[in-house]
Amino acid sequence: MPSEQMVTILVVEDDPGHARLIERNLRYSNIANDIVKLTDGQQALDYLFGEGEYEGMRNYSSSLLVLLDLNLPVLDGFQVLKRMKSDDRTKHIPVIMVTSSDDTQDVSKCYELGCSVFLTKPLLDYEQFSEAIRKLGLFLSVVKVPQGG
Amino acid sequence: MPSEQMVTILVVEDDPGHARLIERNLRYSNIANDIVKLTDGQQALDYLFGEGEYEGMRNYSSSLLVLLDLNLPVLDGFQVLKRMKSDDRTKHIPVIMVTSSDDTQDVSKCYELGCSVFLTKPLLDYEQFSEAIRKLGLFLSVVKVPQGG
Repeated sequence: MPSEQMVTILVVEDDPGHARLIERNLRYSNIANDIVKLTDGQQALDYLFGEGEYEGMRNYSSSLLVLLDLNLPVLDGFQVLKRMKSDDRTKHIPVIMVTSSDDTQDVSKCYELGCSVFLTKPLLDYEQFSEAIRKLGLFLSVVKVPQGG
Repeated sequence: MPSEQMVTILVVEDDPGHARLIERNLRYSNIANDIVKLTDGQQALDYLFGEGEYEGMRNYSSSLLVLLDLNLPVLDGFQVLKRMKSDDRTKHIPVIMVTSSDDTQDVSKCYELGCSVFLTKPLLDYEQFSEAIRKLGLFLSVVKVPQGG
């Protein structure tokens, strides 16, 4: 995405190895945006809405794009997605599911809840996973993301 | 996207030159999916819901992904997106806006209405436009799209 938009990429992923792989492969595609890594669903909501350890911050008003794992501790990806898409402050934020599930019901449910797109993490093939994230990174360079309000 | 999903790509674009450019650059990225080209917003809805010239077809039940221009004759992209996202038969279908508008209000409105992502057509630079579609095509090869129901 164009750097003048100052879009922050939020990576919500409990596996630190996967989070590093995602960040490294986004950077490989010349993504210069800030990348914030969070490790559970509650932390993601706290970050977005300025609650808990992020008390008083208004991160929802920044220009954001979220990469969201489905299986997360405390609150899972479905709950985070549902909460984001039912709140006027966050419903416009693009959410890209990046998850090891390829259950067709999970895919449908995420789209029904309003995710932008659904990518499968091929956990048994890290090169394939890296390649998918590099393609995502290249694509993000041409995507327009809403400005925060 | 994996070919076993048989995802059909619907390109709704009134400019035949742009539609050809989109198709050619998707093919460049080895997209082997069926591509259906439609030229106005009403035709897109008729195709999806099996009305008008598509009477009796249940295309909404196929696995689909829509590339949607904003400025379309008869019904514009906003109206098509709004109708799709408010109908249970089509709300799960990913809609990628591909439009010459880069008005920030248009970008926000499309995301609020539920588009997946927003790409700007750089009309004055066809090479840049082609490059954006090739990146989209590469990315689509790793995206999971909901199966039709």
